Amino acid sequence: MPDQMRAITLARRPNGDPVSEDFAFVEAAVPVPEEGEIVVACSHLSLDPYMRGRMDDVKSYAPSVEIGGIMTGQGVGRVIASRAEGFSEGDLVTGMTGWASHARLPGKEARALDDRLPPSTALGVLGMPGFTAWVGLQEFAAMQAGETLAVAAATGPVGSMVGQLARAAGLRSIGIAGGAEKTRLLTETFGFDAALDHRSFDDARGLRAALADAAPDGIDIYWENVGGTVLEATLPLMNTHGRIVVCGTIAWYGGVDLSGPDKLPGLWRAVLVKRLSINGMIVFDHWHRFREFTETIGPKVAAGEIAYLEDIAHGLDAMPEAFIGMLKGANTGKQIVAL
Amino acid sequence: MPDQMRAITLARRPNGDPVSEDFAFVEAAVPVPEEGEIVVACSHLSLDPYMRGRMDDVKSYAPSVEIGGIMTGQGVGRVIASRAEGFSEGDLVTGMTGWASHARLPGKEARALDDRLPPSTALGVLGMPGFTAWVGLQEFAAMQAGETLAVAAATGPVGSMVGQLARAAGLRSIGIAGGAEKTRLLTETFGFDAALDHRSFDDARGLRAALADAAPDGIDIYWENVGGTVLEATLPLMNTHGRIVVCGTIAWYGGVDLSGPDKLPGLWRAVLVKRLSINGMIVFDHWHRFREFTETIGPKVAAGEIAYLEDIAHGLDAMPEAFIGMLKGANTGKQIVAL
Repeated sequence: MPDQMRAITLARRPNGDPVSEDFAFVEAAVPVPEEGEIVVACSHLSLDPYMRGRMDDVKSYAPSVEIGGIMTGQGVGRVIASRAEGFSEGDLVTGMTGWASHARLPGKEARALDDRLPPSTALGVLGMPGFTAWVGLQEFAAMQAGETLAVAAATGPVGSMVGQLARAAGLRSIGIAGGAEKTRLLTETFGFDAALDHRSFDDARGLRAALADAAPDGIDIYWENVGGTVLEATLPLMNTHGRIVVCGTIAWYGGVDLSGPDKLPGLWRAVLVKRLSINGMIVFDHWHRFREFTETIGPKVAAGEIAYLEDIAHGLDAMPEAFIGMLKGANTGKQIVAL
Repeated sequence: MPDQMRAITLARRPNGDPVSEDFAFVEAAVPVPEEGEIVVACSHLSLDPYMRGRMDDVKSYAPSVEIGGIMTGQGVGRVIASRAEGFSEGDLVTGMTGWASHARLPGKEARALDDRLPPSTALGVLGMPGFTAWVGLQEFAAMQAGETLAVAAATGPVGSMVGQLARAAGLRSIGIAGGAEKTRLLTETFGFDAALDHRSFDDARGLRAALADAAPDGIDIYWENVGGTVLEATLPLMNTHGRIVVCGTIAWYGGVDLSGPDKLPGLWRAVLVKRLSINGMIVFDHWHRFREFTETIGPKVAAGEIAYLEDIAHGLDAMPEAFIGMLKGANTGKQIVAL
């Protein structure tokens, strides 16, 4: 068992897009478990868009990371010391380890993993992102065969699951991504019925025209991962009784341009005239269905029936840049850091 | 039976707020019923905010009134000639008569009324507005005793029903209206727990502070009748898992000021962080529950357990001005024209 662990802390709050100077590396002694706890040596750490919100000192659904505190996040690793019932050295587990090589966790906040699946899947396709897609569709999308669904950030671990589940339910699925390579993956790897590269359009109007072509019957469900231009393009194409699941607004995480016309009245008119149903979702409200998710989707992933992509950075030193890049869409698939 | 009838047509499309020149009066022969039809002599005509939308040539949930066409609307009256099964001369009925002294209707589009209740109630408390409130709360508000509901245009036939149903369900009800007299009625006549006069505040910020005082536990349900400043004031006070029922946006019917900051990103953030549920509703989607409504609420109105206010203008000649005034909030209670 090593003596020292490394971790990444929040050095200062970002001003817009995060930069590497917003993070700091610290070393400390590997912790020793207290009664009921385990210590984990992390093999894989998760990077997720929600982490950007935790860097701000703004009241949100979860507390901010404090300056000097370890960046929050999920990790996977093996137990190296246990004083918690049900956990032994060598067990593969996941939990909120933070951005760190090692973590001490209460046993009841850790979850044992099936050793037969790649450990990293617990962070993506079978972790929080995959579950977000599954439970959000179940709770808020009311999918009907023959309908049309659109989702952006569609090669990401949420969007790609949304698209595949929609297609499996008999919907027409339209994926939007940034860049030609990702757009190619949408149809080839994830089976979207249509794929659009939002970078190939000058503005929302151009994207909207392409979306209208791709959705000849209009859009019944819009899964909102991004906000911004994609939202602007999609809204007028929503069908009567359409549903919007608001899961993230990554386009606005680095700051929002509030100039220009007020788009709220237009949205409100659409909500009324088209009787839209808009629901915000945070996955933390839905953990009680996580077991149902893994029991339903786990076998499909094991059988290769659900595709997923991972973008793996190597080493804790690479983590801040991987995060900064992810917020700009530089990754392809679920962003993971392997230690 | 008179020979001539009078009606009001759309003379031209309004530019912003309607003016009297947008309407024209026409005379015609009183129609004769064809097989399956009735002819009604109207005693009461309804004025409702939705009619403003029908004057524009904009795609919406219902067709526009054509230039030269009779203004659309509901009326109550007695059958003066019938070739429809189930209807006899003298029956009290309601249907989409338009702004007219007489109307020819298919029997299956008319509804017989209980002669023991005042005929005008079929246009307000027991008509479309009352039903809108009842069915909207049933379908989209998920009211829980102990929660707080806010509604504007709260002396109106929708808002006053929303408030009374919320209070009866054990919620704290906050009503917003324009002017001291209406604000007084909110507590005295309709039993709202708190009442605010939106005209007594300079801006959304002032109204928000008063709303925050009136809603010490935050707002769980916002019934949207108006849009504009009230929406801006309310949104930041919504509780996690709050519900917004978008029923109307009367503040924006005469034209929308799109200048100034874009408020859509702020809304979207609230939807996400607070997991809001926003549903647009149009009463026409819900007619299948109308009988349930009249059976539930009719006896309560007859017993005086539900209060309602009517603002009655007299004669077809007064109808355009009554409509123009209603859009500016000049009426108190359900606006009706008695012929």
